[in-house]
This record gives sequence, C-alpha cells and structure tokens, in this order.
Amino acid sequence: MNTLPQYAIIVAGGSGTRMISELPKQFIPLDGLPILMHTIKQFYNYNSNITIVLVLPAAQISTWKALCQTYHFDLPLEIVPGGETRFQSVKNGLAHIKNEHGLVAIHDGVRPLIRKEIIQKAFQSAEQYGSGIVAVNSKDSLRQLKGTSSEAVDRALFKCIQTPQCFNLSLLKKAFETEELPMFTDDATVFEHAGHTVTLVEGSYENIKITTPEDLIIAEALLKKF
Amino acid sequence: MNTLPQYAIIVAGGSGTRMISELPKQFIPLDGLPILMHTIKQFYNYNSNITIVLVLPAAQISTWKALCQTYHFDLPLEIVPGGETRFQSVKNGLAHIKNEHGLVAIHDGVRPLIRKEIIQKAFQSAEQYGSGIVAVNSKDSLRQLKGTSSEAVDRALFKCIQTPQCFNLSLLKKAFETEELPMFTDDATVFEHAGHTVTLVEGSYENIKITTPEDLIIAEALLKKF
Repeated sequence: MNTLPQYAIIVAGGSGTRMISELPKQFIPLDGLPILMHTIKQFYNYNSNITIVLVLPAAQISTWKALCQTYHFDLPLEIVPGGETRFQSVKNGLAHIKNEHGLVAIHDGVRPLIRKEIIQKAFQSAEQYGSGIVAVNSKDSLRQLKGTSSEAVDRALFKCIQTPQCFNLSLLKKAFETEELPMFTDDATVFEHAGHTVTLVEGSYENIKITTPEDLIIAEALLKKF
Repeated sequence: MNTLPQYAIIVAGGSGTRMISELPKQFIPLDGLPILMHTIKQFYNYNSNITIVLVLPAAQISTWKALCQTYHFDLPLEIVPGGETRFQSVKNGLAHIKNEHGLVAIHDGVRPLIRKEIIQKAFQSAEQYGSGIVAVNSKDSLRQLKGTSSEAVDRALFKCIQTPQCFNLSLLKKAFETEELPMFTDDATVFEHAGHTVTLVEGSYENIKITTPEDLIIAEALLKKF
C-alpha cells in the first residue's frame, strides 16, 4: 500500500470552441453527468482519501458551483483558478498544495474513462521511480514529416502519451520553478527538463481525451460498458 | 473528373482472435450488416464504376458467399484469395488487375467509416502525384523509446497513417515486384522503397480500424451519425 499522501490536480481549462457548444467541454453531460464529474469520481473511486485540486478558469468557477448544486455533486474538492496556459494552471495547482512530500497525479478533466487500476499503476511507478506517465502504443503506422516530404518510422518505437501523469510531489514542484518553454507540451516534459527520468506505464485505449463532438459520441458508447 | 480507371483492393485478412469472437472480425455485424459490407458500400457510394477486388483468406471465401446470400449483398466484386502476409495479399490483389494503367486504392476491410470525400481526395492525389495516403495528426503527445528510456518528440512532425492508400497502378505493381521486407508495414512503405514519393492527404479521426471489442462499440456509435 502507498503510505505517502496522494494528490490529484485535475486540469479543466477548455472552452467549448471545438465542440461547437456554448458550454465548456468539461461541463457537457455524458450519460446524464458533466464530464468533469465523471473524471473526479474515478479518482475518488480509486482512493477515497485522495486530495483533489480542481483547476478551473476563473470565469467558470461560478458555473461549476451551480452545476454541483444541480447535480448534488458534493465530493470534497479544492478549487484553484487556472492560468493563461496549461503550464501555469498546473503550477497554480501545485502552489495550492502546501505539503512538500507526497505523490501527485496531473490529469485532464476531459478524460473521464480512466480506470482505477491504471491510476494505481501510475502512482506506484511515481512512488518507486519518481514518475509514472500513462502511455499506449500507437495503433497506426507513423510517418515523420521532413520538410515537404515524409518518411516511415517504426511505430514500435513511439508511445502515445495520456494522463494521469504521476510524480513525486517535491520533485515536480521544483521542476515547475522553471520558466515556461514551448517544448512543455505536457507535465512529463517539464519533469524531464529538470533532469529527471520519465517512466512510462501502460494505459488503455478507452482513456480518450474528449475534444470533438465525435469524441463525445465515442465516450458515451464506451461509458456504457465501463 | 478522373478519367483513369479506378480500382480498390479491399484487404480483409483478419481472424477473430483479438475480438474474442469465432467470426473473423470483418464479418461481425455493425448496425445489422457485416463490417466488410459497410466498407465495400462506401467505395461504391464514392464511384459506382469502381472495380473492387476483395482479398479474403481462402478459408473464409465460402463464409463470405453465404453471408452475401443472407444479407442479399450483390454488389459486383472480384474475390481473390489472400496470402500469408498483408504484403502477399495486396500482391495477389494487384496481380488480379490485368489493366496496367489506372489508379488503385488499398483499403483495410475493417475501416468502414471512410467518407467518399476522403476517398476522392486520395485518388486525386494519386492521379496528380503518384500517391495519396490518408493520414491524420496525432492527437496525443508522443515519446520515442530510446533503450530503457524515452524522450519527448514534437508531435506536429508526425502523422498517423490510415487507409485508403491510393497509387498510380503501374507504379505500385512495379513496386510490389520486390522481395518482402520487415519494414513494409503498409503499402506506402513498399511504394517508397521503390524510390517514389509518398504524398499524404488529410483524413478523419472517425476512420478507425476495428480491431478490438472497444472499437466495435465506438464504430457502432459513430456509424449512427455517419
């Protein structure tokens, strides 16, 4: 069993633009419940003692609170306003955690189809190796663009990165003390930039990130069998 | 308008192993019709004058014929027995096409969610540039494995390859005169190995390859909105 305190920073910074929806995508209902509530429930389902820090754009906090009343959603959460970028949002979430020791998962608010077994594996890897980044093999052949042309690459050498990305809390806090760089496409790259090794753990294809209307259809179908 | 004759080689070599099904996956019904029949219909829907060569494992041909009777499926098809590998199967399909001039699409039998607009773009690219390979951007961050470690790569430089892969028929026939190599993960790599340039055309995320039970759930949901 894990003995270190566990935290999850759920980053929900999306707008509704790609969804052609007025509602920010994380608030769109899936099987009768906003996506973000499904996501949060998965983490409590994994560990009822976890501390969840929800990072939301400041302008969405009142909407979220109204939704919590509507849906009688009362799981304990610490709400933190997001920043201009994902990096800033995660940094705000980390700053909110006063403890220096523990393990922290960073997870996309719009990935509700995350199983507790995978969250557990990622936390265990973070405890043992400093990080546990959920990743899957590429299902498709890959080609690398080279100028105006492209060339085949061996897809077995590439992993598609998902979340959660779990880390030793104090190492990640220090890693985020850097200036933001364009290469920081996820939290693992920030961690790596600080000189640490990124350890991958095997995820699942169903753990999709909901960003388009098609994803919503897919997620709705997968959730029925979840 | 295209003036060259158009062919489509539909490769349906799968067994049911990953589907935990007795039925080869291309025969599993989706919304009441075997997956493979949906796929074939999309190509006829794109061009009613196309010649379709269906490559099936020899052991499955009688099952297929029985299914065609059951479902009253009578679109004209030329059936060719498959080979040991995908390379051999495509080669068998190409050998069956006696014409030396034209355009040919190679397509996975288990990708039924292909839109005619994308088939058209791929054929147009093949007519103009020699090839038209359907590809989409990676939705996920990517990491490249390096020994026991891994490093972040810029996902904007990578494309996920789908089918159809469309080609100038005579160029592809010549390209397939080579010995089979392990690097031939798709038809584009065979074409490229013969010294030709691979041209990519933008596809769609819904054009999934159905290989797992989850994919079947996803495809069923997407097909309803197709």
